[in-house]
Parts: sequence; C-alpha cells; structure tokens
Amino acid sequence: MKINEIFSALDEVAPLKLSHDFQKMIDGYDNSGILASVDGDIKGIVFALDLTDACVEFAIKNGCNLIVTHHPAIYAPIKSIDGALRKCLNSGIGIVSMHLNVDCAKEGIDYHLAKALGGDNQKIVFDLDCGCGYGRVFDVDATINDIKNNYINIFKTENVMVFGDRDKKIKKIASFCGSGLDVKEIELASEADLYISSDIKHHVILYALERGKCVLCVSHYSSEVFGFKKYFENVKEKLNDTNCVFFENAQML
Amino acid sequence: MKINEIFSALDEVAPLKLSHDFQKMIDGYDNSGILASVDGDIKGIVFALDLTDACVEFAIKNGCNLIVTHHPAIYAPIKSIDGALRKCLNSGIGIVSMHLNVDCAKEGIDYHLAKALGGDNQKIVFDLDCGCGYGRVFDVDATINDIKNNYINIFKTENVMVFGDRDKKIKKIASFCGSGLDVKEIELASEADLYISSDIKHHVILYALERGKCVLCVSHYSSEVFGFKKYFENVKEKLNDTNCVFFENAQML
Amino acid sequence: MKINEIFSALDEVAPLKLSHDFQKMIDGYDNSGILASVDGDIKGIVFALDLTDACVEFAIKNGCNLIVTHHPAIYAPIKSIDGALRKCLNSGIGIVSMHLNVDCAKEGIDYHLAKALGGDNQKIVFDLDCGCGYGRVFDVDATINDIKNNYINIFKTENVMVFGDRDKKIKKIASFCGSGLDVKEIELASEADLYISSDIKHHVILYALERGKCVLCVSHYSSEVFGFKKYFENVKEKLNDTNCVFFENAQML
Amino acid sequence: MKINEIFSALDEVAPLKLSHDFQKMIDGYDNSGILASVDGDIKGIVFALDLTDACVEFAIKNGCNLIVTHHPAIYAPIKSIDGALRKCLNSGIGIVSMHLNVDCAKEGIDYHLAKALGGDNQKIVFDLDCGCGYGRVFDVDATINDIKNNYINIFKTENVMVFGDRDKKIKKIASFCGSGLDVKEIELASEADLYISSDIKHHVILYALERGKCVLCVSHYSSEVFGFKKYFENVKEKLNDTNCVFFENAQML
Amino acid sequence: MKINEIFSALDEVAPLKLSHDFQKMIDGYDNSGILASVDGDIKGIVFALDLTDACVEFAIKNGCNLIVTHHPAIYAPIKSIDGALRKCLNSGIGIVSMHLNVDCAKEGIDYHLAKALGGDNQKIVFDLDCGCGYGRVFDVDATINDIKNNYINIFKTENVMVFGDRDKKIKKIASFCGSGLDVKEIELASEADLYISSDIKHHVILYALERGKCVLCVSHYSSEVFGFKKYFENVKEKLNDTNCVFFENAQML
Amino acid sequence: MKINEIFSALDEVAPLKLSHDFQKMIDGYDNSGILASVDGDIKGIVFALDLTDACVEFAIKNGCNLIVTHHPAIYAPIKSIDGALRKCLNSGIGIVSMHLNVDCAKEGIDYHLAKALGGDNQKIVFDLDCGCGYGRVFDVDATINDIKNNYINIFKTENVMVFGDRDKKIKKIASFCGSGLDVKEIELASEADLYISSDIKHHVILYALERGKCVLCVSHYSSEVFGFKKYFENVKEKLNDTNCVFFENAQML
Repeated sequence: MKINEIFSALDEVAPLKLSHDFQKMIDGYDNSGILASVDGDIKGIVFALDLTDACVEFAIKNGCNLIVTHHPAIYAPIKSIDGALRKCLNSGIGIVSMHLNVDCAKEGIDYHLAKALGGDNQKIVFDLDCGCGYGRVFDVDATINDIKNNYINIFKTENVMVFGDRDKKIKKIASFCGSGLDVKEIELASEADLYISSDIKHHVILYALERGKCVLCVSHYSSEVFGFKKYFENVKEKLNDTNCVFFENAQML
Repeated sequence: MKINEIFSALDEVAPLKLSHDFQKMIDGYDNSGILASVDGDIKGIVFALDLTDACVEFAIKNGCNLIVTHHPAIYAPIKSIDGALRKCLNSGIGIVSMHLNVDCAKEGIDYHLAKALGGDNQKIVFDLDCGCGYGRVFDVDATINDIKNNYINIFKTENVMVFGDRDKKIKKIASFCGSGLDVKEIELASEADLYISSDIKHHVILYALERGKCVLCVSHYSSEVFGFKKYFENVKEKLNDTNCVFFENAQML
Repeated sequence: MKINEIFSALDEVAPLKLSHDFQKMIDGYDNSGILASVDGDIKGIVFALDLTDACVEFAIKNGCNLIVTHHPAIYAPIKSIDGALRKCLNSGIGIVSMHLNVDCAKEGIDYHLAKALGGDNQKIVFDLDCGCGYGRVFDVDATINDIKNNYINIFKTENVMVFGDRDKKIKKIASFCGSGLDVKEIELASEADLYISSDIKHHVILYALERGKCVLCVSHYSSEVFGFKKYFENVKEKLNDTNCVFFENAQML
Repeated sequence: MKINEIFSALDEVAPLKLSHDFQKMIDGYDNSGILASVDGDIKGIVFALDLTDACVEFAIKNGCNLIVTHHPAIYAPIKSIDGALRKCLNSGIGIVSMHLNVDCAKEGIDYHLAKALGGDNQKIVFDLDCGCGYGRVFDVDATINDIKNNYINIFKTENVMVFGDRDKKIKKIASFCGSGLDVKEIELASEADLYISSDIKHHVILYALERGKCVLCVSHYSSEVFGFKKYFENVKEKLNDTNCVFFENAQML
Repeated sequence: MKINEIFSALDEVAPLKLSHDFQKMIDGYDNSGILASVDGDIKGIVFALDLTDACVEFAIKNGCNLIVTHHPAIYAPIKSIDGALRKCLNSGIGIVSMHLNVDCAKEGIDYHLAKALGGDNQKIVFDLDCGCGYGRVFDVDATINDIKNNYINIFKTENVMVFGDRDKKIKKIASFCGSGLDVKEIELASEADLYISSDIKHHVILYALERGKCVLCVSHYSSEVFGFKKYFENVKEKLNDTNCVFFENAQML
Repeated sequence: MKINEIFSALDEVAPLKLSHDFQKMIDGYDNSGILASVDGDIKGIVFALDLTDACVEFAIKNGCNLIVTHHPAIYAPIKSIDGALRKCLNSGIGIVSMHLNVDCAKEGIDYHLAKALGGDNQKIVFDLDCGCGYGRVFDVDATINDIKNNYINIFKTENVMVFGDRDKKIKKIASFCGSGLDVKEIELASEADLYISSDIKHHVILYALERGKCVLCVSHYSSEVFGFKKYFENVKEKLNDTNCVFFENAQML
C-alpha cells in the first residue's frame, strides 16, 4: 500500500478536518497530517505518542517505514533537521501526525478517557457536531480517592496528583485529555465537581478550588496513550494486510 | 507601624530590585510591590502564597489589615474588581506581593528548596550576583525513589510524579521553584541527572528523558510554601512588635 | 435593593448594549458596567461624572454605598489600586460606570446637549437605530455670539472658546458631547455651520475653519454634566425607594 | 539667496537637531525641515503657524516664494496632494516647517510663553541642555484671575478657560506651549500650583484638580503664535536683504 | 474639459473599481486615481509608464497640464515632495495614476501582452469577472527560441532572459505583466509549460525549473508599455477634442 | 573525516560570523550553517548553488554524503519535509548552507564578481572589516556594450539586460552579487556610472536612470556560481583527501 491509502484509513477514523474545525473554534494551532512522505510501499507502521530516538529504532527493528505519532513530529516550524526527526528521515521512514483530530474524534482520545472513568453518558464541552469534540462532562458517584485509585489501575500509572477537599463526594467529572484545562474550560464545564487533565497550572488549580471544586492532575502521557492505543487498534483492523505495531514509552507514563 | 516601614523590612530580606533584575535578564513579567496601601497603622500581617477568600477571612479573624502574598494578587492588569481582591479591599486590608524577588533572594524560595533536598553547595543557574538568582544545581548521591520519598517527608505532600529510569543513580539535581522548567533551563543546567520543578509541560519532560535525564514534577504549592514560610519567619523576627501569622492552604499542597 | 436590581434600572434607561454597539461601529473602547459589586443592600446612590476623593467622601456623608459615574472609574486596565478607587473600595462602596451608553441613549447626554441648544428636530450622526446614537445635527438661526451666550447661561459655565468668523450666521449646528470631534466627524456632518464639542485639537479646529465653518469649544464637564443629571433624574424616578443624590464638581465646570 | 542659505539662518536660531533630540527623549514624532524645495532664488518669505489657503494667497500677493510654517505642512505621510499644499506647490512656493525645534529653542516658543507671563527665572522640564528644551516652571505671585487677565491682554485672545479653585494663590506656574500637557508632565512639574497649556484632555485637568492644582487652558494658536513671531523677528534680522512677512490667522486666536 | 470629465473617460476603459477588487482578492496594495488635481481646463494629456523628469519636460513642451501614469506617481506615502513630482506640481500639471485597474481591464495590459504572443483564447488566472483580471494562460505551439524572438520583434526590446530546457516544445504559456510571478502564480497556472513575466526572483525561476517548466524573464517596461499604449489609444479616441500624446522612455525598454 | 572537521574547513574560508555580522548591519535574515548533520564519515562532498533533485541524484551517483549549497536549503522555517530536501535526507546525505558569509568573504562571491570584471582596486560598500563585506565599487574605462560582452564571455551566459544610455562611457562600476541592489545601495555607491546585479526591480532601475546612471541586470545564477566555484576550489584544496565535486545547473545560467 502507498502512504496515501494508509492516510485515507487514518483519516477515516479521525478526519483531519476535525483538527481544522477545532483550531478555528478555539483560535488554536496544530500541525497534523503527512509531515514526511514515502515514495515506495509502506511495509509496516509504528504508532507512538511521540517521535523519539527509541521509537525510530523500534520502527527499524520491526521493518516499518512509517511512524504515526499523536503529537506533531514538527510543531513550531524548524530551520534545521536533527535528533529523532533526522534519524527517521535518514532511515527512509515517513511521518504522519494525527493530533487534535484524534483528540476530538467520535471514538477518539477524549472519548476513551471519559469512558474508562465510567462516563457512558458524555456531554461534549467543545462540540464539533456528530459526537466529535474536545472535553467531556459525565456523571459518577464516588469519592476522589476512589477515582484516583481507578485512574491508577486503569491507566497503569502512579503519576497522579489530587487537589481539593479529599472527602468531597463527586457527582460530575469534567475531563480534558492532554494539557487542555484552563480557566475558560472550568467556566464552560462549571457543573463539574472534579476536573481531570494534565500539566495544569497553579493558578488554574487555585481557580477551581476557590469555587469549591477538586482537581485530579494526571501525567500527560497516561491521559492520552490509552485512547491513542484504541485509535491504533481501530486503524489496524482496517489495514489488516499491513503490519501495525504500537511503541510504548513506559518512562513517560 | 505604617505600611512603608513594613515594606522596608520585607524589601530588606528580598529586595524588589531582584524582581526587576530577573525580569530584565529573562525578558519576563512580574507585578510585585505594594498593590493596595493602608492609610492607618498596620495592626497585623498575614503571609500567604495566594490571595484567596479563606485567606482574607483568616486575616479578619486575626485582626490583621495587611496581607503579604507570594503570587501577585493582581497579575494581568484588570478592568474590574471582584472575588477575594474586592473582599480584601472592602475589609480595609492592604496587599503587598513579593514574587520573583523572594524566588531569587539570597535565602529565598529557590535556596530553601535546594537546601532542604541536601543541596548545601549550590550553583545558581540564573545568577544575579551576591548569592541571589533563580534555579539551583547541587550534588546528591541517591536513587530517584529516595529523593521522591525525601520530598514527600520534608514538604508534607504526596503530589509528586516521577518520570524516567527509576533505577538511575542521581549525582546532580537541578531544581526550579514554581513552574520555571523549560527546554532552556534543561540546557543551562545540562550537568544535572534529575530536574525538579512544577507544572512541567509534556514536551519538556520528553526533552529531558530523550537526553537520559529524570524528572520529578511536584505540586507548585509545595515547592514554594516551604521557602515562603522561611521568608515569613525571617521577616517576623525583624517586625517583632507586629503580629505576623501564616495562612496555610492545605488543599493546594 | 441589591446591586443587580439597581443595575437593571440603570440599564433600562441607557442599555449597556449601546456601548458595545457604538464601540463596534467606531472600533472604539469603553469599560462600562459594574466595576465593583456590593454584597448587601444598596442604601443610597451617588451619581457623579467622575470618581474623585470628594465624591467618595460625599457618598460616605450621605450614607450611600454605590457610586454611579459617567466616566469609567477604571479606564486603562490597572496593576494596583490607589487614590479615590481604593478609598471607595475600602469604604465598602460599589461602582457602576455608564459611559458610551449614556452618551448614545435615546434621551442621553448628546440628546440633551442638542435639545438645550434648541435642537428639537435632531439628526443623529452615528445612528444606532431607535433614536439612539452619537452626535446631533440640528437647525438654528443665530449668530455665534448668541449661541455662546446661550451656552454660558444654560450650562452655567464661562469656559467657552470661539473660533472662526464671529459675524457668520449659523443655520445648522453639529454637537458632540465630550471629546468626540475629529476630522471624520466634520466630514460626516459637513452640512453644519458650527461645531460644538470639547477638548478639540488645533488641527481639527483649523480643518473646520479652512472649510468656512465655526467652532465652539466648551469645557468637557459642562458638555456632559447637564445630560448626565437628566439621566440621574430619570433613574431616580424609577428607584423612588432608594436615596439618589447628585455630586457636583463645580471646579471642573 | 537660495533656499539652503535661508534654511541655514532658520536652523541657526532653532537647530533641527533639537527636534530630533526631543523626539528621541520622549519617543515622539515630528516632520520638520525642507518639505518642498525651490530651484531659483528666494524672493520673499512668509512665516505662519499653519499652511492654509489664505496663507498661500498672502504669499502670492506679497511676491514670496517660500513659506515657513510652525506646524508641519505634511504631518502624517500622504498618498495624494490637495488643498493648500497643492495650491502652494502649483504656485512654485517652497515649504519649510520648523516645529519641535522652535518649541524647544533657547529663545523659542516655550521660552517666550513663560517670559511673557513673568517667568524670568525659568526651570526647563524636558531639558535638552544649553537652555533648550520643552516646558517651563517659574515663580509668580498672583491669583488665577490676575493670570487669566494677563494672558488675555498679552496674547490678545479671550479664548481662555479656568479650572480649579478660583481663590487659590499661585506661586509657581508650569507652562507647555501647544498641546503638551498630560499626566506625565504634571508629575514632572509637580511643584507648580497652576498648569498652562492647550487642547487639554478632561482626565488630565481632573488629575491636576484631584491634587489641588489649577489649570489654565488657552487656545493652541495663542499659546504659540506669540513665540513664533519672536522667532520670525529674530530670523528676519539675520536675513535683512530678504523680504520677510508674517501671516496672521486671527480667527484661530 | 475639466479633470473629472477626463477621469470619467479613463475610468470607463479601466474602472478604478478593478484595482480595489484585485487588491481585496490578493490582499494587495495600490494607489491609483487622481493624485494631484487641476483647477482649470485640461489643455492636453501626456500618457507615460512612469513619472520622470523627462516626462514632465515633455508635457511642458507639448502644452499639456495632465500626466496619466501607469505606475503610481506616489506609491509608499511621502513626508516631503521632491524630484519629478515637485517639478510636475510646480508646473501646475495634474497627475492621474491608473495601475492595477489597467493591468486587469478587459482590454488591459495583461490582455494585450497575451494577445500579442498569439493568445487569442485566454484563460484568466485571477478572474474578476466580465473578462477582467490578472494573468493569462493560452495555447501556442512553438519552441522557446521562437517565442523569445517573437517577443524581441513585437515588443522592440532585446532585454529578454531564457531559463530552462531550450529544446522544450511549448504548448501553453502563462503570462503576468510587470513583476507578478511568484510561487503561488506557478501553482495557479500549473498547466503552463512556459511562464513569462518581469523582475522574477531566483527562487521562483528555480521552483518552475524543478517542475520541468521554462521561464522567459522580460524587462518590466517592455511587458507593460505595449498594453499601456493600447489603453492610451483607446482613451484618446474617446477624448478626441483633447490633445493626447504618449511619452516613451526608450532606455527602460 | 567527520562533518565538524569539514565544516571547520568551510568556515575557515568563509566564517559563519560574517553572515551574523552582515545580518546585524542590514537588519537582515539568513539561515547558514549545518542544516542536517551526518553521523558517520563524510565520503564525498557536492557543492551546488541550490539544493535540487538533480543535485541530490548527482551526489548519490558520485558517492557523496554531504551537499554544500550557497542558498540555504531551508530558508523560511518549514512545517513538513518534501521535495529535494526529503530525497536528500532519505539518502542519508547531510546539508551545509553557506550563504551571506560566502557573499561577503575576503575572497568570496562579491570579490570574484568584481575581479572578473576588471575590478582589482575594490572599495567595499557594506564593509565588515578585514577585506570582507558586501558590494564592490571599482574603476573601469569602457562602454556598456564592452562590459556586457565581457560578462557574456566570462560568465558564460546570454541572460543579460542593459538599461540606460548605451553610449555612455563607464568609469566606475558598483556590483552586488545576487539580488542585492535597491535604492539604498544606489545611494551608498552613488559615485558609480553603472550598477550590476540580479532580479532588479523596475523602480530601482528607474531610480538609477533618473540619476543618469546605467544598469546591467544579469541572471542571479551567473552572478553567483562563478564566485561559488572559486570558493569550492579553495575549500577542495584544504580537503585534499576528500572527494569534492561541483554540480552545475546549466539551465539556470
């Protein structure tokens, strides 16, 4: 298969258009899509959250010549080529990055983050229509401690911080995969008792606590790798003639 | 005592000039100083990391009419007055914020963060002369696990995340109180094996791990309240005729 | 009554929406609305063109805990709180500012400025529909000297300057309360023989005179306090259970 | 004489360098210098505060082919040529504008404004060395009313407004020709009891009155034409072989 | 005839509106229209690509008091008046510039450039409707050498450069009068084998050659004077009572 | 040899510092240096003016794994990797670009351009000291036609345009390799009779002709490849153990 056919399958599950729609909605930035093409046939695909040296070595060892990352392998525009990016290109490996579109997809990262925490009946915070969008609000009935322990068990990480009244009964959670929680999101999902996200800034946590809320700050990697693996499995099924493997970066969990 | 005399004592320990010098050095922003004055005598002073509703109530209950915060009570310029800030002003309480100058002071927050972790022989990363500046590099001989447990014991918080190879022997730590760790800081303190800071972004952690380093991400509050309390004790001694009390915000630890 | 009920009455006569509409029309700036709230009941209201020390003292003496100003008590965003603003907040007094919306209201400042000068049949220059908008053009039949003397008598001030041919017969006046006269306004109301406004720049006066027009430059305060008092009287009637008093600043006339 | 020789004489009394120095000091803008040259001999020179149609006609009638204005005949850069500027060029008349340099000159406009009001012993507010600079502070002993009447008599205009306590005894005046009074100037000349300038904005007058000061707001033209005529007389003497005449614009007084 | 009647005739053939439409389409800049008016009757008109000293002298010698240029006589806004522009104004000669509108007109410069090269059946690249717009694509059947020689013969210039495979058979040409060829235009007219334009940058030529295309870079003057003369002839016919002459600048060919 | 040793040799002849110095002098932009590194030994080096597909194929065929270009292979920062750049990286070939530093070097491109045209006694226009800098002025005694024919013979191209009086005697030439001639350069080298450069804009040619000057506009490639080949020969000698070959792009001449 050629890279364009592969890309069609990737796009079918998480259309690139979702990234453009979400950028427009929040006046944001992304660089998803084919970042480096491959001329010949795709012999195998590695999926990974980030393009790293170990990930490229893993692709070479597995005979793959395409890496699909979640975080754009080039984010801010660059003036020279080095590190894992150069290693990747020197090895003739192509790169596709699927970022905000996978965050927002119908069965994307944000959907799976909420679902794993028990959120079957989800409301979408930044709603792009058709079940797509960023941020989820959903019902639970638990203490923060229960939710923290659930997170540790399901997402296989101990990198979890709790802020707020530990005895508070949580009825509604608002979750945002990656680093998407700011004051604006707290306002948009003000019905929640608990906010879950990553890389949360001090003044944002304080803002939530001043309003009687709690915050669960989890590692960025753990909040996204779970859903990105679901995406991988979904695409793998569509491309069942192509070797698809997932690269784990356990030290980032 | 009048507010200007109080301010002199505060400034003696952590001169406002340090904030201006550090802003110039990193092309940064701060809003330290007297943010709201008091006409009469200062009857008592509350020290707190942040201006919150509970903190203002605490000041009223303790008969204090001045609050000294670490984080500026007004950061981005404002167009109306509400929340804890209005409550504070409505109660006739003045506000002084001492931020980057306390971070950088000779015996400031960064100094005490490093010292508590065993860093007696500190090198300053952003050096403002005379033992002042931001960021510290120092020698240790421990595993990350030891360091994590030390942090939990000394700083009285469980909100600590570990990234990188858990078995790595750590010889040098670079610590930055608050949210001061970015790619530039990793480069400036490239001799460190472990970086300690707060609110660290995913790509910064990844950058460190790609270079074989480890990262300890601790809660912002815990990384600063420890040193700010030392500042409080230092100032309290100088103002021994004035009632000085410390306000704890345990839910942010 | 609570502040929100008071604000409803203020807004009914001069809807805040007019400020937003006018800002959009001229790509301008304003900061009208509730700038500092009050938790308890409103015991009395002072109306004043500007927030000054004397005005706050007047409010305290009259047992009022709300001041409604015309000019925004905070205009450019601020980083600390001092002067009359701090005195006001320290005294537990709330602040509402009603600026461009009162300029443009159906029976607002600009309407009353023109009406007092004999302009019953007014054309609106910046027309926001429904009889609202900024700037008025209307018919008269007088010499400039007559108009100047009228102004002095009606608006109770001697702070009036005359530019242009003193013998000219005036058939049409264009008036703009406050400092709203620039080259653009002269063009938009080019049928006028005489322009009346405040704080007019030299090159704007010259531009009018080069086209054979005359200019009456009156004190900013006098051009607005007249109409703002009409607004006060209008609102006072609606709030007849609340003590409403007007604060005069005679030295600014 | 050629235009360059004329310019040398103009520059000797009020060096263009002063304009550049003052622009740099206040981060300001000016467009002084030769704005349109003349190829042949200069047959006569008209001096005027502003380039107007009547001024060009006056030059033609007087056989002059050079106009020296105070305010730049082109201020903001232009994309087409019309009005008095085109009339001037079509008549083969050259243009020199001498603005901030004449304001700031040793015996410039600001110097003569202060001197005429009795300010022999002047302090310069924006000091460019050698007795040059903008703004003057000087001693008097009079009521505002006396000063107002003096102004009316000396500067031959009734366009004068008074703000503040009319009974106040004035010991020190700060004067700024043209529209140069803002909050910053009040602070720099805070020892003054009375500020004199033109086109003063409402909030600047208010700022002065809040600090117990008085303000005399005079017409821009009257505050400058007096000193510019002194400049004219000074230059005329140096160019005693060239016909130099002054154009008055009485309607702007 | 007055200048406004002349302008109507000029505008009828190449409506100013086309300049505004094209500026909006490409987010571009122009300064077409009457740049300096004439009060009396127009005695004669000189048409020229650019306003130069020689062109003004030519107008004087021919008793003309209006010059119609293609390139705006004032492009970037100006702060003083000198050179040919001053000479022109000093001689009482008015200026009209007709730039992007003549480029884009139905029978404008771009139309005639393509037509002279055999392009009867033209496709418009930037299509402004009604046969107007910028850039033309058309069919030919020739070698580059033939086309180059054609250009030299028809446009009377030897200032022609050829880039690319000299033996290539050309089936389609894309032409852009003046300096309008950039990477974007190559993409928009990607069906062409040969691009013709002026002042082409090195990286643009390289971009075309990398895609197997050829480039003919001709002098800016020659690519436009041909079509501007057609415009002149067209207007001259409409103004058959007014003396219309064309000024050639042979050294720019 | 490793890439760093190769770079040292390249830098010795044309120090990167010259690019930074010249950027600072003219407030310009460049992206010279190692743009993509090579891990192993350098087996051979191709020198070329630009990175093109044919150039990469040439490198592969010649067993080279480093390409040294004059024009930066990445100029504006990029967000994806394609075309010749990707082909180059996929083939494991490194990239060094040496741009403004080779233009300005002591025996750099500008030096050789002038020398070939007979300019032994050169004055540097943008002088960076030590015989380095951009732009040269030098003496000749010839007609433009002679100079044009010289250029055609020496630089092996017919892509040359002549503007101005063809009969003029040329005593002084100012030459600027690449596209470096603008109005500012004409002013800085106003003693020249003839300006030689590439990609010259219409209004710049016109500006020169209005001042009685002539202009020779040559193809960008021809004005630089001559001097870049001299740089290649110079470096080749220093690296006599490494295979160095030059790639010609004849269609750009």
